[in-house]
Amino acid sequence: MDAEEFRHRLDAAAMATEAALDALLSPQALEGEIARPARLLEAMRYSSLGGGKRLRPFLVIESARLFGVEGASALRTACALEMIHCYSLVHDDLPAMDDDDLRRGRPTTHKAFDEATAILAGDGLLTYAFDVVADPATHGDASLRAALVLALARAAGLGGMVGGQALDLAAETAAVPLGVDETLQMQAMKTGALLRFAVDAGAILGCATPEQAAALTRYGKALGAAFQVADDILDAEGDTAALGKRAGKDAERGKATLVGLLGLDGAKARCDALVKEATTALADTGLGDRTSVLAQAARFVANRRH
Amino acid sequence: MDAEEFRHRLDAAAMATEAALDALLSPQALEGEIARPARLLEAMRYSSLGGGKRLRPFLVIESARLFGVEGASALRTACALEMIHCYSLVHDDLPAMDDDDLRRGRPTTHKAFDEATAILAGDGLLTYAFDVVADPATHGDASLRAALVLALARAAGLGGMVGGQALDLAAETAAVPLGVDETLQMQAMKTGALLRFAVDAGAILGCATPEQAAALTRYGKALGAAFQVADDILDAEGDTAALGKRAGKDAERGKATLVGLLGLDGAKARCDALVKEATTALADTGLGDRTSVLAQAARFVANRRH
Repeated sequence: MDAEEFRHRLDAAAMATEAALDALLSPQALEGEIARPARLLEAMRYSSLGGGKRLRPFLVIESARLFGVEGASALRTACALEMIHCYSLVHDDLPAMDDDDLRRGRPTTHKAFDEATAILAGDGLLTYAFDVVADPATHGDASLRAALVLALARAAGLGGMVGGQALDLAAETAAVPLGVDETLQMQAMKTGALLRFAVDAGAILGCATPEQAAALTRYGKALGAAFQVADDILDAEGDTAALGKRAGKDAERGKATLVGLLGLDGAKARCDALVKEATTALADTGLGDRTSVLAQAARFVANRRH
Repeated sequence: MDAEEFRHRLDAAAMATEAALDALLSPQALEGEIARPARLLEAMRYSSLGGGKRLRPFLVIESARLFGVEGASALRTACALEMIHCYSLVHDDLPAMDDDDLRRGRPTTHKAFDEATAILAGDGLLTYAFDVVADPATHGDASLRAALVLALARAAGLGGMVGGQALDLAAETAAVPLGVDETLQMQAMKTGALLRFAVDAGAILGCATPEQAAALTRYGKALGAAFQVADDILDAEGDTAALGKRAGKDAERGKATLVGLLGLDGAKARCDALVKEATTALADTGLGDRTSVLAQAARFVANRRH
C-alpha cells in the first residue's frame, strides 16, 4: 500500500470516528429521565471532537478489518478507546500535572472551561468509554464485550497508561534520572499500552487465533515504542506550530526522553529498527497482503512530522 | 431483624470488603512484566482502605444474598463499586472542586500525597473497578459481567454520579439557586445512582425476575434519596468530630440542601416517608423475610449519626 492510499484510509477512519463520537456524545444519545449537565457534556465534546489524527481508532478499525470485521463493533470500540485517550490528555494537561495551555492548537479543556469541569469531563469520558464497549450495540456476543472491557481497563489503568503517567511525573522530580530501560518501560505503559490495545481489540473482535493475536500484540508493542521515540525526536526537532503544542517542553522540563538518552542518531536508528520489528510481526499473522495497511501505519508513525 | 444483628451484618460486610480491597490492591495482585508505580498504588490504597461504613458494598452483598448468591461474585462487585465511590471522593476533595483537607478524619489524598497523584489515584481506581468487574474471576457468565459493567458505567457517568457532581458545582455559582425538584434530581444522580447500582447489581447477579429487579430499583432509589436527605440533616445538625469532615460546610457554601429548601422538620418528614417507600418496595420483591436486612438498612441510613 502506498502512502497516498494509506492517507486515504487514515482520513476515512478519522471521519467515521468523528461522526460516531459526535453521535455518542450528542444530547439526544444521553436523553432520559435524568437532567443533563449541559456544560459538562459540552466540555466532553470539546475534549474529544474536532481534532487529532485518530490514530488509535484507525488501528482498531484496520485491525478488525484484517479479520473481516467492519461496522459498529469496530467503530464503537474505536470511539471508546479514543475517549480514553482524550480523557488522558485532559487530565495530563491540568495545572497539577503537565500544566499545558495549548493542545492541538486550541486552549486545553481547563483553559477553555475551568479546572473542575476539566477533571469531571475526563472522568466522564473515561466512564463513558466502558459504557460504550459494554453496550450490546457494540457486539452481540457478551463474552467479546467483557474481554474488550478487561483489555481496555488493563491498558488504561495502573499497569498501563495511568501507571506510566505516574512514573513519568515521578521521574521529573527524582534525584536520579531514568535510564534507558526504565524510560522504555515508562513509555510502554504511558503511550504504548493504548496503542497495543488498539490492535488487541481487532484480534478480540476478529476472533483471531492465539498465534495471530500474539503476532498482533508484538506489532502493537513495536508500533507503540516507535510512536514514542518518534515523539521524542519531534519534541527535539519540531516547531510549536506544527506540533500544536509547545516544542522542546519535555527536554526543557528534564523529562526522560530517548533523544536525551540515545542521542538523535541513536533514537532514529531505534525508530527504524522498531518499524522493521512491527513489519516482521505482521508477516507472522499469516494474513498476507491484508496487513499492508498496518505496515504502512508503522512507517507513518515513525516518520510523522506532527 | 433488630438493630444489633443488622450492625453485625454491616460490620461483617465491611471487614470482608476491606480484606478483598486490600488483596485487589496488593503489589502482588498487580505483579507482571510491568513496572509498578509504588507511590500511585500507595495513594490508591490510602484512598480506598481503612475507612468508611462500606454501605455500598454491604448493599451489593446483601442484595445478592437475597437470591442465594454469595462469595467472590458479590464481593468483587462490591469492591469495584467501592473503588468508584472512593475515586469520586478523591476527585471531589481536590482544590478545584470542593477543596477539602479532611476526609474520614484523615488528610484528603491530595493533602497526604499531592494533587497530581490524587488525580491519577482517582483515575486508577475508576479504571480498576471495570477491570475487576470484567474479570472472569467475578463471574463465569460473561453476559452478567457485561451487564454489571454497563450498569456501573451508567451509574457512575454523565447521567449519574459525574453528572450530578457537575450539576452540584454549577449550582454553587448559579444566579438562581436550585429548587426542590432540581435538587432532588441532582442528588439522585450524585449520590443516588451508585446506591441504586448496589441493589441493581444484586438483581443482576441473582438473575432476578423483571418484577423483582424493578422492586429493588424502587428500593434503591428511595434508599438513595433517604441517604441524601439524612446527609443534609447531618450537615445542618452534626458536629465536625462525629462527621469526620467539616459540618455545616454545604449550607455555608450555599449548596442546595433539602434542609435549606424544606426546613429541618420538612426534611425529617421526607426522610421518614422515603424509609416507608423503601420498605414497601422490598415487600414487592416477594422475597419475604429475607429482605428484612435491607429494610433495616433503610432505617439505618435515615437515622445514622455520621
